[in-house]
Amino acid sequence: MSTGLERLSINQMTVKQLSLPELADACVRLGVPGVGLWRAPVQSYGVEATARLVRDAGLTVTTLCRGGFFTAIDPAEREQAVADNRRAIDEAATLGTDTLVLVSGGLPAGSRDLHGARERIADALAELGPYAEEHGVRLAIEPLHPMYAADRCVVSTLAQALDLAERFPAHQVGVAVDTYHIWWDDRAPAQIARAGATGRIHTFQLADWTTPLPEGVLNGRGQIGDGSIDMREWKGYVEAAGYTGPIEIELFNEGLWARDGREVLAETAERFVTYVAG
Amino acid sequence: MSTGLERLSINQMTVKQLSLPELADACVRLGVPGVGLWRAPVQSYGVEATARLVRDAGLTVTTLCRGGFFTAIDPAEREQAVADNRRAIDEAATLGTDTLVLVSGGLPAGSRDLHGARERIADALAELGPYAEEHGVRLAIEPLHPMYAADRCVVSTLAQALDLAERFPAHQVGVAVDTYHIWWDDRAPAQIARAGATGRIHTFQLADWTTPLPEGVLNGRGQIGDGSIDMREWKGYVEAAGYTGPIEIELFNEGLWARDGREVLAETAERFVTYVAG
Repeated sequence: MSTGLERLSINQMTVKQLSLPELADACVRLGVPGVGLWRAPVQSYGVEATARLVRDAGLTVTTLCRGGFFTAIDPAEREQAVADNRRAIDEAATLGTDTLVLVSGGLPAGSRDLHGARERIADALAELGPYAEEHGVRLAIEPLHPMYAADRCVVSTLAQALDLAERFPAHQVGVAVDTYHIWWDDRAPAQIARAGATGRIHTFQLADWTTPLPEGVLNGRGQIGDGSIDMREWKGYVEAAGYTGPIEIELFNEGLWARDGREVLAETAERFVTYVAG
Repeated sequence: MSTGLERLSINQMTVKQLSLPELADACVRLGVPGVGLWRAPVQSYGVEATARLVRDAGLTVTTLCRGGFFTAIDPAEREQAVADNRRAIDEAATLGTDTLVLVSGGLPAGSRDLHGARERIADALAELGPYAEEHGVRLAIEPLHPMYAADRCVVSTLAQALDLAERFPAHQVGVAVDTYHIWWDDRAPAQIARAGATGRIHTFQLADWTTPLPEGVLNGRGQIGDGSIDMREWKGYVEAAGYTGPIEIELFNEGLWARDGREVLAETAERFVTYVAG
């Protein structure tokens, strides 16, 4: 009998108050089959140890977050970023996930050149794509909401992400489709179809849009069902584009982080059944 | 001899700490020829009295802000919004400005239907366009940054604004081009050309993008030169599209509001000369 949770993956940031063993245990108890992991907590626990933990729990690692930050102008900084992304690819391979999510980076201090910053991302991808392929890892460019264009990610739309990704083979570079970042964009459904047609939907992530946004606009991603986004509509778009993979819920939310992590995880699973599954 | 201020218009919100007579006096002393006005302070001072004040000071009213809020579903609410916009058109005509800026409205409470909300805007424009034309006033749809899509304006890009505007004659409905809202959008330059080709750039407004954004993301528009936007680049786009009209600076910024209004006005004029004029 279906639980409705078969495609759910919980991104670790959603319940960052849980340790990795607590997260794995809670997922197993609830019947959540997938997790998306973040580099810093994985490194703290140990990459090999994390790989063992999730393997022993029978969990699938759907993504590793995150590589990226490719927009520096200084050559030494750029070389450092590329080297760090090679390590992220190694970690993804060790964890057994095929997808490394990329947050590409904002404008360097004092720069007003969005176009130049986007081109430097392409340069970095050209270096990293073959290395990722050798390790069985796909890079997923995540367009971030335009409100992050200056300080976090100059790739603001799915169209821009695909313009970059399509310079490379799909098994090297694709995109992350996250409802929080693209829900306002009337062109996004057509871009999802474009991404699906060339096999470039490397992950599908959900968060809801709630207001007012908090200061700094980082940690206000809403629990599924609390906001303005019709999750089944967006699931319909990725499915029509041929995507049948995991659906990852990734919330950054001070309110959720202040609560008991297991309770938040159970609530998130319930919301998935109500607003997404089926 | 050129002062560099010939095309500058100061939107009243930039220095809302100044009364209308203080604003008019400060503009005259500095040699700022234009002002953009807001309905609430104009109504408090009196519409006729404001019209006299700015006429006697020799100032041009470049825009009136703002009409709009067309997205309600309830018929009574919708009729009320249309009636209020007729009054806004009357006020614009009395003030002697040819441009009423429209903030179209967000999603109604509980709704997740962006497309439907955008269609209701078109319905309202069909009612208001002829009335505006009779009064010599043009409606300017302002696309607001996508971070306002849920609670303030479902029109998030210049392309969406033009898709709406082009259903009507250009002398009835055009667009507001505001750097703050569109600077992240790699399609915006082509859309400015599209707007110019049909005479639909009804106003050109400037604010700079600074981070971190404040809670609620309303009052963090940066002083010209403080942020990530290349103002001369965007001025180049509107000029290449045939726009030679006023350039209005509209900042909502708690930091600027806390300072002496005349000092902020003088600083803003200096920034205009340094970052925009010429």
